[in-house]
Amino acid sequence: MMKCGVFDSGIGGLSVASELLKAGLFEEIIYFGDTARVPYGNKNESTIIRYSLEVLEFLKNFDIDFLVVACNSASSVAIEDLRKEAGFPVVGVIEAGVKALNAQKESKILLTGTKRTILSGKYQYMLKNAGFNNIIPIATPLFVPLVEEGILEGKIVDEVFELYFGAIDKNDIDYVILGCTHYPFLEKSFQKHFPNAKLIHSGQAIVELLKNEYCLKEKYDTKIKLFASDNPEELRSKAKGWLKL
Amino acid sequence: MMKCGVFDSGIGGLSVASELLKAGLFEEIIYFGDTARVPYGNKNESTIIRYSLEVLEFLKNFDIDFLVVACNSASSVAIEDLRKEAGFPVVGVIEAGVKALNAQKESKILLTGTKRTILSGKYQYMLKNAGFNNIIPIATPLFVPLVEEGILEGKIVDEVFELYFGAIDKNDIDYVILGCTHYPFLEKSFQKHFPNAKLIHSGQAIVELLKNEYCLKEKYDTKIKLFASDNPEELRSKAKGWLKL
Repeated sequence: MMKCGVFDSGIGGLSVASELLKAGLFEEIIYFGDTARVPYGNKNESTIIRYSLEVLEFLKNFDIDFLVVACNSASSVAIEDLRKEAGFPVVGVIEAGVKALNAQKESKILLTGTKRTILSGKYQYMLKNAGFNNIIPIATPLFVPLVEEGILEGKIVDEVFELYFGAIDKNDIDYVILGCTHYPFLEKSFQKHFPNAKLIHSGQAIVELLKNEYCLKEKYDTKIKLFASDNPEELRSKAKGWLKL
Repeated sequence: MMKCGVFDSGIGGLSVASELLKAGLFEEIIYFGDTARVPYGNKNESTIIRYSLEVLEFLKNFDIDFLVVACNSASSVAIEDLRKEAGFPVVGVIEAGVKALNAQKESKILLTGTKRTILSGKYQYMLKNAGFNNIIPIATPLFVPLVEEGILEGKIVDEVFELYFGAIDKNDIDYVILGCTHYPFLEKSFQKHFPNAKLIHSGQAIVELLKNEYCLKEKYDTKIKLFASDNPEELRSKAKGWLKL
């Protein structure tokens, strides 16, 4: 049985699970949200690594064949440690996001994410390694609570966009990397403010990476199991809406 | 030596520590911010109780004489368990806030706080027990990330006030309970939007309660020690600014 573990610090990774469900690459997805310790974004590197390895131990109990790290903070600091311990392929949203850019190398890329993701420099490092040099990294931490409150468009969102992006020429951006699993829910607002940009969505990027590099095929009617370290009922109720379970 | 432990889920409790420092009721304050597990507000009751008892064990090592629970979420669900285990007085911001209302019983009270604080109903229960019946409870979770981002006034804050308080008559409110340790930093915006209201600030309320009920006097040049379960340097840097250390 082809099983994939999906791990996020909270419920945001459901945006990645949603794309995996639609794609049908696996027979079963085991989702774990570390909701007792969310968010990872403001924690130390060593703490994030320790938490990530604990989640891996939990997911190993399900005999998973792949691990998708849907959490950008964990992707940026814990992916190497997870690979050493896993014994199966581990893919993270950051490398997937970078690989999804089939852009001209001179494209102007706006990179958004939590403070920890942006400050870690991991995304910027991987983008530069892939030949991209025209990168504007901006930490946009208020987007997470806005999404969690269900405020996805309107005046407040527009003001927050102005706060973060007021100083840049929005028409001139070719790609916007939605570098946090919560951000795809703000897709409409992003597209309105960046009319000429292609949005890079972690979930879609992960699906493309799994198809291209691991030759996985869209052939299953994927089931999903949901686990959380706290408030599993909230995770399930969000999943009901977002994943149409 | 008179020592007081102050405990919050994160850095917000510094607003309470700040008032205790100014008041000089203790020789030393031991502050613990559970920053590795912040925020408590979205966690289950049993999880919050477990975390709170762990923090108590840590603070007991310092031979404290009092414990101030500066975290509203812990105050609303863990105070009884803390009292059973402590062996010294434990005071919480919720009871302090309620006791700070020397209002006419028919006063109109706006109660603000995180979702967990408002949903717990603890504040409302204690207000009703104290004879207040004209209470408007409104959960205002976006204020926490705004304060953490240092956005304390201006367009975004005004829009968020409109979102939360657009439906009520702002001139008609007599008291606003700032039911989360982060909210005192938004004092100026609260006073602008509620021009006729007295703001109830947890830190000031705790100082009053300690003076009135435990006969503590303002006589020390209080020292403070700061601890955090993650990122202690961030706590110290915030404390430097906020507490003028």
